Amino acid sequence: MSGTTPPEPPYVAVIFTSLRRPDHDEEYAVAAARMLELAAGQPGFLGVDTARGADRFGITVSYWRDEESVRAWRRHAAHLPVQRAGRERWYERFAVHVARVERSYRFP
Amino acid sequence: MSGTTPPEPPYVAVIFTSLRRPDHDEEYAVAAARMLELAAGQPGFLGVDTARGADRFGITVSYWRDEESVRAWRRHAAHLPVQRAGRERWYERFAVHVARVERSYRFP
Repeated sequence: MSGTTPPEPPYVAVIFTSLRRPDHDEEYAVAAARMLELAAGQPGFLGVDTARGADRFGITVSYWRDEESVRAWRRHAAHLPVQRAGRERWYERFAVHVARVERSYRFP
Repeated sequence: MSGTTPPEPPYVAVIFTSLRRPDHDEEYAVAAARMLELAAGQPGFLGVDTARGADRFGITVSYWRDEESVRAWRRHAAHLPVQRAGRERWYERFAVHVARVERSYRFP
C-alpha cells in the first residue's frame, strides 16, 4: 500500500527489506501498524510505501524531509523496543539502505 | 525476493512502486521475469529486491553502480517496449525514485 505522495526532490528514502520468520504474525501485524501510524506523526515524515509477498519477503520505503528526521525516528523511544523485537523474533534477516532521492517521476 | 547483496555505499537505488491492474497476469509475469534476468546482465547492475502483496501493490528496488548504468538500462532497446506495455496495460499507477545510497546496514 502507498501513503502520501512525496514532494519534489531532494528528500531521503529509507529502504527497509526484510524476510519475516514464519511465526508471531499477529504480534508483528499489530506492531507494524502502530509503527506506521507513529512514524506518520513524526516531524519530517513525507510518506511510506510497503509491500510483502506470499514468500514473506517485504519492502518498506519511508520518505523523510532530511537526515535529521530519519535519525530522530530511528532513536524514538517507542521505536527502539520494536527494533529489538524485530531482531529477536520477527525477522530472519533485514537490510536498510538510507538514500538521498535526486529525481522522481510518476504515472499517470 | 532478494537478489545479490549490494556492496559498500555509495551506489544508486532505483525505487519502483506500482499498482498492478487486475488482468494480464501471465503476460506481466513473463515480461517481469525476463526483465529481471536481462537487467542482471547489464553493466553496473548490483542487485534487486522485489515484493508484491495480495493488494497488487508492489515495490522493486534495483541497485546500480552509478547513474550512467541506470540511464543505460532505462534506454535499453529491450526495455523500452516493456516500459510502454507497463503504461498501456499493466499498471494503474507507478512512481520511480532515483536515489543515491549513502549508508546501509543489515541483520544478522
